[in-house]
Amino acid sequence: MTKDTIWYILMTDSHSLIMARVREGNKKEELVKAAKYLFMTEGINQVSISKIVNKAGVAQGTFYLYFDSKDEILDAVAENISQDILRNVQHIAEDDVLNAFEKLGNIKKMFFDFLLSTDEVILHFHGEEHAKAHDRLAEAINRQLLPVFKDIVWQGNQEGIFNTDYPDEAAEFVLAISGASHSLNIEDKKAVKRWVSAADDFLIKGLGVKELDTRH
Amino acid sequence: MTKDTIWYILMTDSHSLIMARVREGNKKEELVKAAKYLFMTEGINQVSISKIVNKAGVAQGTFYLYFDSKDEILDAVAENISQDILRNVQHIAEDDVLNAFEKLGNIKKMFFDFLLSTDEVILHFHGEEHAKAHDRLAEAINRQLLPVFKDIVWQGNQEGIFNTDYPDEAAEFVLAISGASHSLNIEDKKAVKRWVSAADDFLIKGLGVKELDTRH
Repeated sequence: MTKDTIWYILMTDSHSLIMARVREGNKKEELVKAAKYLFMTEGINQVSISKIVNKAGVAQGTFYLYFDSKDEILDAVAENISQDILRNVQHIAEDDVLNAFEKLGNIKKMFFDFLLSTDEVILHFHGEEHAKAHDRLAEAINRQLLPVFKDIVWQGNQEGIFNTDYPDEAAEFVLAISGASHSLNIEDKKAVKRWVSAADDFLIKGLGVKELDTRH
Repeated sequence: MTKDTIWYILMTDSHSLIMARVREGNKKEELVKAAKYLFMTEGINQVSISKIVNKAGVAQGTFYLYFDSKDEILDAVAENISQDILRNVQHIAEDDVLNAFEKLGNIKKMFFDFLLSTDEVILHFHGEEHAKAHDRLAEAINRQLLPVFKDIVWQGNQEGIFNTDYPDEAAEFVLAISGASHSLNIEDKKAVKRWVSAADDFLIKGLGVKELDTRH
C-alpha cells in the first residue's frame, strides 16, 4: 500500500462518514420538519407517527432511530420553534438600520405572529405533563434572549431614546412582561390587542421612553 | 331506645368523628410544620424522615399515612409556604390605613423577607425534577395573587397615586416583574439590592406614579 493509497482510503472513509452523518442529520431534520408542519396544521392529537413518517418520506423504523415516542418528537418540534424565535430575534437585533425602539417593536410583532401561528404547539406545552419540557424550553429561550435584550436597552440608552439607570435589569423586566403573555387566551383577539397596548404603555414608561409620537 | 338516646348517639358519633379528623389534621399539620422548620434550618438534604417524625413527635408509620416520600412532604411544605405568602399579601391588601403605593411596598418587603428566609426550600424547587411541582405552585400563587394586585392598582388609580389606562394588565406586569426575581442569586446581597431598586424604578414609572418623594 502506498502512502497515497492510505490517504485515499482515509479520505474516502472520513468522507463517507461525514456524508452518512449529513444524511442522518437530514432524516432527523426532515422528521421534525414534517411533524412541525402536521402539528401546526392538523393539531397534535390528529397526527400519528405513521402520518409523520409518510410526510417525511422515511420508513417507520427510521423514526425510532431518533425518537421513542410522539411526545419526544414534540419536544424536538418545540426546540425547533424556539430556535426559530431566537434566530429571528437575533436577526432583528443585528439590523444596523433600526434604532432600539424599532427593534423592540419588530421583536414584539414577530413574537406575536409566531404565537398566533404556532399556538397549538405552544399551548400543548402548558399541560402539566409537559411542565419539565416547557420549563426547560422557556428557560433556554430566556437565557438566550436576555443578552440580546440587554444590548437593545443599552443601545436605546445611548441613542437617548430610553432613559433608565438600570439597563440590565430593565431588559429582564421587558422579558418578564413578554413572558406574561403566556396567560393570554390567544383566541380572544380583542384581549390580545388590549394586552399588547397595555404592555407597550408599561414598557414605554418603564424604559423612560420620551418624545416619541408612538407614546400617545 | 328513646329519641333522646338516638340524638345522643348521633351527636357523640359525629363529635368523635370530627375530633378524629381534627387529630388527623393536626398530625399532618405537625409533620409539615416540623419538616418546614427542619428544611429551612438544616437544609433539605440533611433532613431524614425519621428526623421529621421525631421533631413532630409522631410514629414513623404516621408519616406514611399522609406522605409516600420525603419529596411529597416537601411539596406540602412548599404549598404551606405559598399559603403563608398569600395570607400575608391578603393581610396587607386589606389594611385600610395603607394607600396603594404603601401596600405594594409592604408586599415587596414581605416577599423579600420570605425569599431570604426560605431560600433553600425555594431554590430546591427550581431543580428540574421539581418542575411540575414548581409550575403548579407558581401558577397557584400567581392565580391567587393576581386579583389582589388588580385591586391595589385600581385603588392606586382612584387615589390618584397611580396613573394607568390598563390597571388589570398593569397588575399582571407587576406580578411578572416580581416573578423575575427568580433569576436572582439571593446570596449576592448587592445584586439583590440593585435588583429591588431597579424593579422599584420600573414599576413606579410603568404604573405612572407621580409626585411621590419615593420616586427620586
